Amino acid sequence: MTEALAAPLSAEDQTVQSMPDVSPTKWHRAHTTWFFETFLLGPAGHPGFHPAYGYLFNSYYEAVGPRHPRPDRGLLSRPGIEEIAAYRRHVDGLMSGLLSGPIDQATAGLIELGLHHEQQHQELLLMDIKHVLYVNPLLPAYLPLAFPNPGSPAALGWLYHDGGVVEQGFEGATFAFDNERPRHETLLHPFALADRSVSNGEWLEFIEDGGYERPELWLSDGWYAVNNNEWRAPQYWHSNEDGYWQFTLGGPRPVDPAEPACHVSYYEADAFARWAGARLPTEAEWEVFAIATPLDDRRSLDLDRLSPRPPEAPGRFFGDVWEWTSSAYQPYPGFQPEAGAVGEYNGKFMVNQQVLRGGCCVTPPGHLRPTYRNFFPPAARWAFSGLRLARDG
Amino acid sequence: MTEALAAPLSAEDQTVQSMPDVSPTKWHRAHTTWFFETFLLGPAGHPGFHPAYGYLFNSYYEAVGPRHPRPDRGLLSRPGIEEIAAYRRHVDGLMSGLLSGPIDQATAGLIELGLHHEQQHQELLLMDIKHVLYVNPLLPAYLPLAFPNPGSPAALGWLYHDGGVVEQGFEGATFAFDNERPRHETLLHPFALADRSVSNGEWLEFIEDGGYERPELWLSDGWYAVNNNEWRAPQYWHSNEDGYWQFTLGGPRPVDPAEPACHVSYYEADAFARWAGARLPTEAEWEVFAIATPLDDRRSLDLDRLSPRPPEAPGRFFGDVWEWTSSAYQPYPGFQPEAGAVGEYNGKFMVNQQVLRGGCCVTPPGHLRPTYRNFFPPAARWAFSGLRLARDG
Amino acid sequence: MTEALAAPLSAEDQTVQSMPDVSPTKWHRAHTTWFFETFLLGPAGHPGFHPAYGYLFNSYYEAVGPRHPRPDRGLLSRPGIEEIAAYRRHVDGLMSGLLSGPIDQATAGLIELGLHHEQQHQELLLMDIKHVLYVNPLLPAYLPLAFPNPGSPAALGWLYHDGGVVEQGFEGATFAFDNERPRHETLLHPFALADRSVSNGEWLEFIEDGGYERPELWLSDGWYAVNNNEWRAPQYWHSNEDGYWQFTLGGPRPVDPAEPACHVSYYEADAFARWAGARLPTEAEWEVFAIATPLDDRRSLDLDRLSPRPPEAPGRFFGDVWEWTSSAYQPYPGFQPEAGAVGEYNGKFMVNQQVLRGGCCVTPPGHLRPTYRNFFPPAARWAFSGLRLARDG
Amino acid sequence: MTEALAAPLSAEDQTVQSMPDVSPTKWHRAHTTWFFETFLLGPAGHPGFHPAYGYLFNSYYEAVGPRHPRPDRGLLSRPGIEEIAAYRRHVDGLMSGLLSGPIDQATAGLIELGLHHEQQHQELLLMDIKHVLYVNPLLPAYLPLAFPNPGSPAALGWLYHDGGVVEQGFEGATFAFDNERPRHETLLHPFALADRSVSNGEWLEFIEDGGYERPELWLSDGWYAVNNNEWRAPQYWHSNEDGYWQFTLGGPRPVDPAEPACHVSYYEADAFARWAGARLPTEAEWEVFAIATPLDDRRSLDLDRLSPRPPEAPGRFFGDVWEWTSSAYQPYPGFQPEAGAVGEYNGKFMVNQQVLRGGCCVTPPGHLRPTYRNFFPPAARWAFSGLRLARDG
Repeated sequence: MTEALAAPLSAEDQTVQSMPDVSPTKWHRAHTTWFFETFLLGPAGHPGFHPAYGYLFNSYYEAVGPRHPRPDRGLLSRPGIEEIAAYRRHVDGLMSGLLSGPIDQATAGLIELGLHHEQQHQELLLMDIKHVLYVNPLLPAYLPLAFPNPGSPAALGWLYHDGGVVEQGFEGATFAFDNERPRHETLLHPFALADRSVSNGEWLEFIEDGGYERPELWLSDGWYAVNNNEWRAPQYWHSNEDGYWQFTLGGPRPVDPAEPACHVSYYEADAFARWAGARLPTEAEWEVFAIATPLDDRRSLDLDRLSPRPPEAPGRFFGDVWEWTSSAYQPYPGFQPEAGAVGEYNGKFMVNQQVLRGGCCVTPPGHLRPTYRNFFPPAARWAFSGLRLARDG
Repeated sequence: MTEALAAPLSAEDQTVQSMPDVSPTKWHRAHTTWFFETFLLGPAGHPGFHPAYGYLFNSYYEAVGPRHPRPDRGLLSRPGIEEIAAYRRHVDGLMSGLLSGPIDQATAGLIELGLHHEQQHQELLLMDIKHVLYVNPLLPAYLPLAFPNPGSPAALGWLYHDGGVVEQGFEGATFAFDNERPRHETLLHPFALADRSVSNGEWLEFIEDGGYERPELWLSDGWYAVNNNEWRAPQYWHSNEDGYWQFTLGGPRPVDPAEPACHVSYYEADAFARWAGARLPTEAEWEVFAIATPLDDRRSLDLDRLSPRPPEAPGRFFGDVWEWTSSAYQPYPGFQPEAGAVGEYNGKFMVNQQVLRGGCCVTPPGHLRPTYRNFFPPAARWAFSGLRLARDG
Repeated sequence: MTEALAAPLSAEDQTVQSMPDVSPTKWHRAHTTWFFETFLLGPAGHPGFHPAYGYLFNSYYEAVGPRHPRPDRGLLSRPGIEEIAAYRRHVDGLMSGLLSGPIDQATAGLIELGLHHEQQHQELLLMDIKHVLYVNPLLPAYLPLAFPNPGSPAALGWLYHDGGVVEQGFEGATFAFDNERPRHETLLHPFALADRSVSNGEWLEFIEDGGYERPELWLSDGWYAVNNNEWRAPQYWHSNEDGYWQFTLGGPRPVDPAEPACHVSYYEADAFARWAGARLPTEAEWEVFAIATPLDDRRSLDLDRLSPRPPEAPGRFFGDVWEWTSSAYQPYPGFQPEAGAVGEYNGKFMVNQQVLRGGCCVTPPGHLRPTYRNFFPPAARWAFSGLRLARDG
Repeated sequence: MTEALAAPLSAEDQTVQSMPDVSPTKWHRAHTTWFFETFLLGPAGHPGFHPAYGYLFNSYYEAVGPRHPRPDRGLLSRPGIEEIAAYRRHVDGLMSGLLSGPIDQATAGLIELGLHHEQQHQELLLMDIKHVLYVNPLLPAYLPLAFPNPGSPAALGWLYHDGGVVEQGFEGATFAFDNERPRHETLLHPFALADRSVSNGEWLEFIEDGGYERPELWLSDGWYAVNNNEWRAPQYWHSNEDGYWQFTLGGPRPVDPAEPACHVSYYEADAFARWAGARLPTEAEWEVFAIATPLDDRRSLDLDRLSPRPPEAPGRFFGDVWEWTSSAYQPYPGFQPEAGAVGEYNGKFMVNQQVLRGGCCVTPPGHLRPTYRNFFPPAARWAFSGLRLARDG
């Protein structure tokens, strides 16, 4: 899948880093392979493919040594895409060998982690290349995509909860990240949750009502971000005489009022909710409804679409857009990071970030869970991030 | 009290802004007076003392108009300390007049808010002037202070709680800030809380054990801060051949192992707790014990000391140092900001900050409450901030 | 004189540093005294007045040890103005003693250098305090000053020179800085020089003709500065419905078309000259006329004016405004810096600066010379800098 | 030639911009073609190849419209190297057509300018790709190059000149840039000029004598650059237990004491000269000897070498390294920029730069002239820049 996602991109496309948060496509390809080489092949006695790759393709694991600075990933022309393809084939071959023999529990766990890690990077690859293509005045498409004609926002309904002690977090034999654990009790107060995420049509009303010009709607840090970055609409939106258009992985197209609002920061999501007389849900409020909903993957990664779609039915919780919650990203009661270097995966980021839930239109199928905790800093906009309203019950 | 705190300082001392977070002493004196003028005298029909003061001394209230940029407060030589003294006398006079007549409930509430606001700035004035004096190579004292000889850390005990649904937040007829409300139920898991805050002696052990050099102890953002700012000890600590000394409001003196560790960031507090095999408490965990403890003010602002003191007895919760909690600063369920411009007081800062509890050695007496929620960004160190350990029960 | 210039300023005024290029008044007072203490009293065996003052008040002399960072001079509340007055009295006393005894040639030279150094700082003190007062929204005056009614620019005439080999630089027994030496031959090409500097009236025409909006008039670095700093008029100029006003040491007043244009950068001077179909003179072109002109001091520092005046007569070369030349600040052929630490006075700045000639309305009388080489970086505007046109003959 | 220089580079190599001063290889290829399209084909009535290329590939010509920001050239993955090759073929075809018809004088002049412009970019392409490859921890070679064994510096001799009025600048019917004109008289003082440039062996002595640690050797801005950038040797030099090695277009190799010192800033060149008891020559001093020397191209661009070579014979002036002069880059007396947009080529950069003379090992043959004025800011090091000593005669 990773290689398939990179296939439409030229060597030049795969090299560019458009901002420090973005990684080049070829770096994603190499880093996900480095993960298997470092945490599985190395301990199994295989020497590294290249002596410098441990340095070049370590993302943030302090325990496995120094690394190339993240903001400089776009300065690396070598290794090129052919060498990285060879690296991947080499590691895939060794991993096949490993998998053909007996595997202990810990090794199986690391392999599973490596696969989920790579799925995360498949999503990041698409998020990142969208930004890379966008900063180019030519506004090239990643793939030619067909979009339906714009529609209207669906009606908005509310789901009610009486509150009380509920369970939150993952428990079970299947895969989950350490930050979803342990399953624990938490206390909810009565609340209502919207039955769909906020639409572009509603966001247009927010803009027209002066949403980006009224400080009383904004957190102080958010108001600073609005003014410092001159935010006037979601990331990738622009206006001309015909109204708003947006950049998508299929190139520029008109904003469709029926689609979920996307590429908004936490600050914008919070301000929108205040403007709407509502608030963002906590992650526990989101989860208690989502866990009672059938999990389906039909709104996740689909190479024919790569954009959030208008809701088909109310009360859906997965895919289209990640939904900002009001919950700061913090450890659950009793949280224990994984043992070893992979313990750096989640725990060390538990400050200055907000939790998002639900998955999006570029999340690989099979990578969605009602307990999944995604997280980004509150100013981030390049993820496929939207919001769902809540209010006190 | 504000004027008494400023009295030992020269005109030059009162003018300097040593970093963007710090405000000059004379600005604190003017801003607290501006609060009464803006929110009480203006609505009562009194013209402003000076047409520019509304601009110069507004801190962050968007609803009352534009303001002088915060990082530029130290560029203002005028008004000087004499003009500011006259401004205060003028407003005090008008406020006396107002107070001598009948006062409605809302007005009384604003006056009370203005007094608590001024108490907060009394603490800030001392925090800030400590930094101003510290950046001066002459290391001048704010006041001559006598300190006892260094001692040893007290024994550390633990307070146990079985968890369950408890109440959190303020309820009652006396004063509290909006962010302490509403009183609401929350669910605790069994835990233990240290019966005193961490001491300098323990912090010295952390340093000697390589605490500032081991990335596995740190949050990712914290490790960046350690390296970017070259943190090797708490703010105001330095070492020489005789060991560590610290800058205090009484000038430089040796670090006393018996005193509470102070002037540490959230990142340092979190790393220390991890090193100690513990964690920081949530604010609910802290509050459930503190509220059951007699509130006394003997460890708060005392002009003969102005430094945290060694603990007299275990199980004390107020004064000496503010204690970082693991809780991100977020609204309580059902939170409503105050109506009007003073609604900007607390609510708009509810992101990117951590809650601290308990008050410190420069908090004015009468300004302590078990439900009081102080907050600072996780990298801040110039407040009198320490920590208390917790662990799962 | 230094103390007289500081006298109208409060302790607060004397403490502020409004930008890194500016030094606080009290720093100027201390630094000029430090010069005598360091280069005369120290070698004569006198211990320093205070052990930290060598560090605090060294400006840039690498040879005499480390120094407090220039951009942080405004962070120092201590020593206060009273302590600095005492420092000056102390050093003055010791210098009086030194002067009452026999003095060798080298010592006499250093004393003379110290006096000229202090004269330079008298000018800097006024330049700097003008900026300090200007950044204050209250726009306070340094002194109450009376200004005549605005007039019209004088007629502009031209002085012609046939070119040929001429002499440039200082030679003689009286004082001059090392950078004015040695006197040497240089070759001039035929040229004409304006008989007065450019007036505000002419500058207004430049503005109205789109001077700040036409890239073809500007050096590339200048055009960047215009856009990056949003320059639309000289420093201290602002427009309102009545036209342009300017901030002066007497407070705000209307721009007088008859006065010399002032507070322009080299970039602006160069662009104006190009707009006018002329060019800036070289320093040799300026000097060959100035040296043939009687030197008078009537347009230099005058506490009743402190602003450039309309020209009284054509062909004057001294006072009112420093005049930018097209000459980069470089050593004369055969240049030798002074021996010892004072050799750092001029030579080490001979790159990235342009030469200005003539003196200005805040230059102390007695500090003007036809060979005097002042220098500033091309973007500097806070000096009293104007220009005089030249053209090929 | 441009295409031949790009041929060894992958698509990835041609995309990276390693610092704001550097342009990607594919940008150089497109920009040089844009020059012909804009200044020749457009006026001849040919529509542009692509509507966005005028914006993307304009370097700094204000007169022909807005342009993509220089520091963002490395953010452009599209157009890719194949599209740029097609663009070049398209423009080459149209230029062939143009050249097959009658051409007026002005057109011929622009074509000649376009060719010299492209030669400059051939040199820049190699300078820039050297930096791109260097920032990569893999330190890849541009081409495999064979180097001789290290030797020893040649003896240094001096060439003497009695001074007097001499001619400087270009005059003649062949090509020269506008900044080399007009030929004019200038006055020289007696001086001596070294008969070769400074060698690596001499630079090693400078390092060993503490050259980078002694402030008295440096201009003030240079000393700041040394400390701020931690310069301890020329750009591309590093030391290990075997001594110094340097990065070359052939990859890493030991520093050869016999070769000319290269990749030093003006600040370093000036400090070295002071250390050596000498000074840098003015450009007139350099030119008066160079113009009397046979011009040969044997030390310019040679794909088998791409590094400066040890001198073959004394008194040579062309190739190997550009030589910093003490002359600020300023207009000659009577300078007139070219008419039209190409007048922006040279004149608008005449501030904040120093002149270099002579050409280097990556300057295309045919692009050397004794009157040629190259220029760079004094902190630049990525050009092939060295120095030749001078002293007063």
